[in-house]
Amino acid sequence: MENIQPTERTKVVRHRERGQYGRDTVNAILDEALICHVGYTLEGQPYVVPTTHARIGDRLYLHGAMANRMLRTMKTGIPVCVTVTLLDGLVLARSAMNHSMNYRSAFILGIAREVSEEKEKRAALDALVNHVVRGRAAEIRPPSPLELRTTIVLCLQIAEASAKVREGPPIDDEEDYALAFWAGVLPLTLVPGSPIEDPRLAAGAHVPENIAAYARPGWRR
Amino acid sequence: MENIQPTERTKVVRHRERGQYGRDTVNAILDEALICHVGYTLEGQPYVVPTTHARIGDRLYLHGAMANRMLRTMKTGIPVCVTVTLLDGLVLARSAMNHSMNYRSAFILGIAREVSEEKEKRAALDALVNHVVRGRAAEIRPPSPLELRTTIVLCLQIAEASAKVREGPPIDDEEDYALAFWAGVLPLTLVPGSPIEDPRLAAGAHVPENIAAYARPGWRR
Repeated sequence: MENIQPTERTKVVRHRERGQYGRDTVNAILDEALICHVGYTLEGQPYVVPTTHARIGDRLYLHGAMANRMLRTMKTGIPVCVTVTLLDGLVLARSAMNHSMNYRSAFILGIAREVSEEKEKRAALDALVNHVVRGRAAEIRPPSPLELRTTIVLCLQIAEASAKVREGPPIDDEEDYALAFWAGVLPLTLVPGSPIEDPRLAAGAHVPENIAAYARPGWRR
Repeated sequence: MENIQPTERTKVVRHRERGQYGRDTVNAILDEALICHVGYTLEGQPYVVPTTHARIGDRLYLHGAMANRMLRTMKTGIPVCVTVTLLDGLVLARSAMNHSMNYRSAFILGIAREVSEEKEKRAALDALVNHVVRGRAAEIRPPSPLELRTTIVLCLQIAEASAKVREGPPIDDEEDYALAFWAGVLPLTLVPGSPIEDPRLAAGAHVPENIAAYARPGWRR
């Protein structure tokens, strides 16, 4: 598996054993996560904003309206950090300080560029819709020329990135294993409910299979 | 309901109608969310790191080991941003650009201070455990004096903060409502699985009720 070369900035230092640098690992986390948290700095103040993302190959795309401060700021070419986190469970130890969580997270550092070429912009917007529901971009009205013009799409190369993964039972101090406190993992899963149809649904519109049997890439259920 | 006075930095500009400034709203989002994403800037590069948090009144606490770069950096007294996001559903519209998500998010800006007083530090660490599982701090081994000394606890005042909430069906362009594409909301819920007991569980340790019937504050299920 191809590795992404860790840098001083992306090498996992704390809990080194959790660091993972395989491109497939980073990609799988990005693809499963519905949202990312984007960090940027404006006038010395960091901001962290949740948004959706989509990956095409080794490129990560973000988008938003022209009025979006985050995107307006980011398109000026400043360093950003995009972090995604999948929470898999609560790690419940015998001691307070060994409590933890099972998770898979990944982060990317870089400078985003604005996508201006129409073909790439349309591909990115399709990918953003398909990231949420696979195949959905082909089942809806695509962006109009006006919508395309008033939407900012940014691209971040997945070049400086790493993942951090924790799994398995708690790790307690050796002398604590004798304590009769319950310890273990409480798994957590993101579960889709029943689709709620729009009150103004047009006649003949049926729930498609990709929504009725909704799944994320990587789900084994 | 008491409001947190919005500043130029926390006022919701994009989708103004989603902005909420009630302290109870911000608190409820912080309390339900298991993790937050913390943003800080180091040598011009923003970093966004997932971690756990806990609230006591109008104070938010974070913690970690001395070796934790984020906490070592933050305790120098730099501006940070703490963002929490609860994902409630996918908003599936008839057009690509009206796709959205239902979510509740909150963010806090400020400068964190290191907690050095032992009583406050212990209360914060108890709160951090109880945030994950209510009542758990009383059912495990508390931090030892050594663990206390080697753990950094930071406190961020919930003073400059706001929430952003989207709920309800998609909002499509008027002319798109006639299109026979399925539209609506796919609810998403974080669901606890069956507790997995630690392979080295001591005899007589039983799953307590707060784990067997796990619930977050705010869950109505």
